[in-house]
Amino acid sequence: MSDLSTTPPLTYASVQAAHELIKPYIHETPVLTSTYLNTLASTPRTTEEVFGKDEAAKQPDYQPAKPVLRFWFKCENFQKIGAFKARGAFHAIERLKREPGWEEGGGRERGVVTHSSGNHAQALALAALTSQIPAHIIMPSTASPLKIAATRSYGANLTFSGPLASEREATAAAVQAETGARMVPPFDHPDIILGQGTAGLELRGQVVARNGGKGLDAVITPCGGGGLLSGTALACSSEGGPLVFGAEPSDTGADDARRGFLKGERVTSVATTTIADGLRTHVGAIPWSVIYERRLVRGIYAVSDEEIRRTMRLVYERLKVVVEPSAVVGLAVALWNEEFRKLVEEQGGEKGWDLGVIFSGGNVSLEMLGELIA
Amino acid sequence: MSDLSTTPPLTYASVQAAHELIKPYIHETPVLTSTYLNTLASTPRTTEEVFGKDEAAKQPDYQPAKPVLRFWFKCENFQKIGAFKARGAFHAIERLKREPGWEEGGGRERGVVTHSSGNHAQALALAALTSQIPAHIIMPSTASPLKIAATRSYGANLTFSGPLASEREATAAAVQAETGARMVPPFDHPDIILGQGTAGLELRGQVVARNGGKGLDAVITPCGGGGLLSGTALACSSEGGPLVFGAEPSDTGADDARRGFLKGERVTSVATTTIADGLRTHVGAIPWSVIYERRLVRGIYAVSDEEIRRTMRLVYERLKVVVEPSAVVGLAVALWNEEFRKLVEEQGGEKGWDLGVIFSGGNVSLEMLGELIA
Repeated sequence: MSDLSTTPPLTYASVQAAHELIKPYIHETPVLTSTYLNTLASTPRTTEEVFGKDEAAKQPDYQPAKPVLRFWFKCENFQKIGAFKARGAFHAIERLKREPGWEEGGGRERGVVTHSSGNHAQALALAALTSQIPAHIIMPSTASPLKIAATRSYGANLTFSGPLASEREATAAAVQAETGARMVPPFDHPDIILGQGTAGLELRGQVVARNGGKGLDAVITPCGGGGLLSGTALACSSEGGPLVFGAEPSDTGADDARRGFLKGERVTSVATTTIADGLRTHVGAIPWSVIYERRLVRGIYAVSDEEIRRTMRLVYERLKVVVEPSAVVGLAVALWNEEFRKLVEEQGGEKGWDLGVIFSGGNVSLEMLGELIA
Repeated sequence: MSDLSTTPPLTYASVQAAHELIKPYIHETPVLTSTYLNTLASTPRTTEEVFGKDEAAKQPDYQPAKPVLRFWFKCENFQKIGAFKARGAFHAIERLKREPGWEEGGGRERGVVTHSSGNHAQALALAALTSQIPAHIIMPSTASPLKIAATRSYGANLTFSGPLASEREATAAAVQAETGARMVPPFDHPDIILGQGTAGLELRGQVVARNGGKGLDAVITPCGGGGLLSGTALACSSEGGPLVFGAEPSDTGADDARRGFLKGERVTSVATTTIADGLRTHVGAIPWSVIYERRLVRGIYAVSDEEIRRTMRLVYERLKVVVEPSAVVGLAVALWNEEFRKLVEEQGGEKGWDLGVIFSGGNVSLEMLGELIA
């Protein structure tokens, strides 16, 4: 994680440069397609499906959206550590290794530090291990044993804290003071954003290669802290690039990015219990500057936990792919969100859209999976 | 399905020709890798793991196998209809369309017929639908509602029969007599074998492209009726091609191919209740001629249902991929079968093997999945 004063500008070219840096360390994840899901998405929902049984009777004249959609699923659940977070973490480490004076000043020995209960912890641990740099990870003692074990298996030094964000931050500050390690935040840093953007960059190239030279019309990604969404927006910001959309859970106030987008002001705190546990955080300031202030994201749409469950089930049964709840919000929007579907109908017309959908990760235990889709 | 008198010879070149014919209709399925599974496979098992707790004490001098393995997983669970069977079915239809006199004789109107309770039914239904040829499918009335619904969704004419093989065959013969449709068997035909072999052909090319020009040392595939195994053997029979191995379940006598292989005589009937439901059949005569008589398969190894369950769990948690029990027997052999692992140690030495593993399919309901890996 480079010092902010030395980070590259947030541009398309910087995402390309990030890709060159991390290519040796990451998987070029495959892109899947599904005739079944294309047909399902391109079939209008019934009024009853849209409004529910009782309400549908009151909407006799409603015309359900008629979008035409062809999906291209970018499977970052097959990425190292099972999520796109490996991209940002490897990029942060590669940039750090190139920061003037870092190595000479003993930076390598002091290592890196972060606090995370999720995929970023594993990603940073793996990236640091790969370059033989010590990683100090602060996790809440309530984190899942599976994630603790995975992070430990990458050789990280674990410190446990209380479950509150303030407790984690205090512990991280103490560890940082003690070790002199460099802080690598999960999303609110240009190096992380540019690294995550490489998923969108790869996806664009893969689709052109397989689609007779025709690129994507649009891309949709989940939005939690906003690293993936803002990185993807940069990766699509070249001349003639696809439109970019964000997707969020709506239950218990998790749609902070959408609310902020509509209000014109970033929401800076969120408390939610959505099943999409990777998206429970609010959007960071730097991602927000790309997403909203620079207008590089066209819109943000939200779906219910029930719609997320239904979509997970489809992805398991039809695509044969293990995804975590956060991963499917983009597909759920395309399948069930009438507002988004009306937009595709209007803008895509009869020809429709080639829509890139980024599946962000697949880190879900079999037990939890059973409960989620029961 | 061409008449046997007009089928191509069972050679490497015929697999290449089959690939050209079916490419427009099938997915080039991705190949995944996993550092975790490579490490696990390259770690010797303990004597206790090999023999069990009680027996281990009696084997103080046993030296567990020390293979070095790098896996390349060919994900045919992402193939159309969720299994490699689409390859053989599309090839059968494409060959039929090119059979002299077939179209002129009204073959297109009479269509195709098969009996199957599994993936072949869906595969033939889809391939026939794609060429607008009627498909008559005989399924046992005890087949899973999911598979019945899937086959019906591809527009096939379904006829139900009793659950016994003899009942299905009698019903199929009656439907064939009535409709004049051409029989397309699930594995015991050159067109099917050559079609299935294209999975191995693709895999070889994909590995060379990603592995710095180095090809596979060996490939292992499941063996039920033997279509996939014999096709893969042909796809690997070019000069300098990889060794080919078969994998089977061992419980309740499912290892008919292995027993036949050791005895030098094909086993022609098998009754088993292994959880690997796609592998409950015995090997067909034409696959056997390739596998055994022409010595194109080096060996066949078996694993227990318990080992299959354990492997499925690993594939879900580590590769994030939905597989059916039959799909993982090759990986299970590489992880748990000491005899195979000793062979890899001996032949691969310190450099080890790049081993291609074909995941044959992913058609398993979420409910069954929950039970299987509980």
